[in-house]
Amino acid sequence: MTDQVPAYAARTPGAPLARTTIARRAVGKHDVLIDIKYAGICHSDIHQARDDWGPGTFPMVPGHEIAGIVAATGPGVTKYAVGDRVGVGCFVDSCRRCENCRQGREQFCLEGVTFTYNSLDKNGEPTHGGYSSRIVVDENYVLGIPEGIALDVAAPLLCAGITLYSPLARWKAGPGKNVAIIGLGGLGHIGVKIAHALGAEVTVLSQTLNKRDDGIRLGADHFHATNDPETFTKLAGSFDLIVSTVSATLDMDAYLGLLKTDGALVNVGAPALPNSVSMHSLIGGNKTLAGSMIGGIAETQEMLDFCAARGLGTEIEVISAEQINEAYERVTASDVRFRFVIDAATFAA
Amino acid sequence: MTDQVPAYAARTPGAPLARTTIARRAVGKHDVLIDIKYAGICHSDIHQARDDWGPGTFPMVPGHEIAGIVAATGPGVTKYAVGDRVGVGCFVDSCRRCENCRQGREQFCLEGVTFTYNSLDKNGEPTHGGYSSRIVVDENYVLGIPEGIALDVAAPLLCAGITLYSPLARWKAGPGKNVAIIGLGGLGHIGVKIAHALGAEVTVLSQTLNKRDDGIRLGADHFHATNDPETFTKLAGSFDLIVSTVSATLDMDAYLGLLKTDGALVNVGAPALPNSVSMHSLIGGNKTLAGSMIGGIAETQEMLDFCAARGLGTEIEVISAEQINEAYERVTASDVRFRFVIDAATFAA
Repeated sequence: MTDQVPAYAARTPGAPLARTTIARRAVGKHDVLIDIKYAGICHSDIHQARDDWGPGTFPMVPGHEIAGIVAATGPGVTKYAVGDRVGVGCFVDSCRRCENCRQGREQFCLEGVTFTYNSLDKNGEPTHGGYSSRIVVDENYVLGIPEGIALDVAAPLLCAGITLYSPLARWKAGPGKNVAIIGLGGLGHIGVKIAHALGAEVTVLSQTLNKRDDGIRLGADHFHATNDPETFTKLAGSFDLIVSTVSATLDMDAYLGLLKTDGALVNVGAPALPNSVSMHSLIGGNKTLAGSMIGGIAETQEMLDFCAARGLGTEIEVISAEQINEAYERVTASDVRFRFVIDAATFAA
Repeated sequence: MTDQVPAYAARTPGAPLARTTIARRAVGKHDVLIDIKYAGICHSDIHQARDDWGPGTFPMVPGHEIAGIVAATGPGVTKYAVGDRVGVGCFVDSCRRCENCRQGREQFCLEGVTFTYNSLDKNGEPTHGGYSSRIVVDENYVLGIPEGIALDVAAPLLCAGITLYSPLARWKAGPGKNVAIIGLGGLGHIGVKIAHALGAEVTVLSQTLNKRDDGIRLGADHFHATNDPETFTKLAGSFDLIVSTVSATLDMDAYLGLLKTDGALVNVGAPALPNSVSMHSLIGGNKTLAGSMIGGIAETQEMLDFCAARGLGTEIEVISAEQINEAYERVTASDVRFRFVIDAATFAA
């Protein structure tokens, strides 16, 4: 018995998002029905709704930064109970058998992960995301949101938070380490908070000094403008780790020059065009250029527990569903500090 | 009191190497005088003698793969005694105080390492390399060559050996790991031997299948031709670690596609031109593109001890000094299996 649920969808590629109704599957044995309370707006929602990344499935209901309350559980569910505070991130299923799934890297499932939206589930049905009132998800792909983080500021942790936490943890941001974050947007701002909470000395590298006060308030120790060429001479050889959150094509050799010996530059923002990289920039100093994509379920839970223990949430502007299209324009213009979160009560209004 | 020593030098950039005599400094308090027995020919000798890498110091005596016997020691020397089997690699001094020196990464000395040749020592005197009968080196930059490796096959370990050992060890080649080596030349062939000895499953990726029998004999489990496009589909997602030893500009995105999730592609051969790299090739699968340059003194000793314990040496063709120029032509044409080593007795002839 499917459930008819209010939602906001792009009917065709690039169309403004508008109110609609979608079907959610009946709650299966291992499923959790979630009353969505908040859904974050990720830049990748906009790319996919506009079909920037190739043919998507329309109508499309975006949203993979979901926070809510468990409203019902299937008979086989053991991890969650009605009333629990929960979240859903970028994916809702995977094969569970491949090497990557077994090692907790479900986002790289070798049989193909089922994304939260713009994807097909195991029955070949299109998935629909968080811009809606309710969602049904297998309990193994549901995260617990601990007490101590409000649901609105928790929602963006499910994508932005794990996107930054994973490389910061893997590449060992911590006491005694100099960490730079390139870009202070939806991704970068939570990166600054997490890196600071991990004990690293944190530098923001932003195009201009416009966001300097915000950066320092969020926990950065230093703030430098990358439109000032002196930044690249002054900071040469300074960082153990740099995380780039921007999707602009960077002068990668210049940024690699900011790393110490053995340092790593990790990209989580994906420029559309390829970069030019001199292998000499890597060989001189045993340096690393890496990529990182969200995180697995266990790692995402670890991130939520870490953020709750440290009182970390995202900085948000809560909007109603009718403001989604305006918010998309503002995200595209970098006019948001630092994440829009949709109040899910307004989907049904 | 300096010592006049027979040597082979390029008098001017690109000039053929010819017999000459150079001055070696008097043996200082912490110095070791080494009777050179063998000197390997590294491709970088050729680049520098031809001034491919910008203005060098001429006349130039190349050679940084040196194996010999201690002939005298200064009064403060504690590590070596007359008669000891020793080696000298790519550098002969560093500041000893900076963060990198203190951490055993002398090759990246922040005040600038003193290379074995084509460099200036602390007194501003040009350094001269292994194409000569004797050399004087501070004991802290001299390696011990254990019994169990002949000096001729040990010489190329001082550059080629450590160049491959360092990334294989750092990126954890070992049992259960699939490791590919790109290129089966002077660097690649010892990489195959070391990776095999470390317990990894080893694949050679070579332009053609011409060197297949050699590769298998050296310890490779598999051998594939990269001029066959099917190689890139058949082997997609196969390797934990790929080490590229070639200086050709590769289709880096294609090679990154051969890595498993979390895999690393490490460059030790340095293409002259920058590479095009899509950040998507790194983000999809949390992949790493890295560089690696030789190794520190302690790590080089560790490599020599490892090779001696496993009976590993390089595969060489011993030549006399008069054959150096012909050998340079053959190295440039990839016509060597796998390293030329000069018999140092012939420098004085």
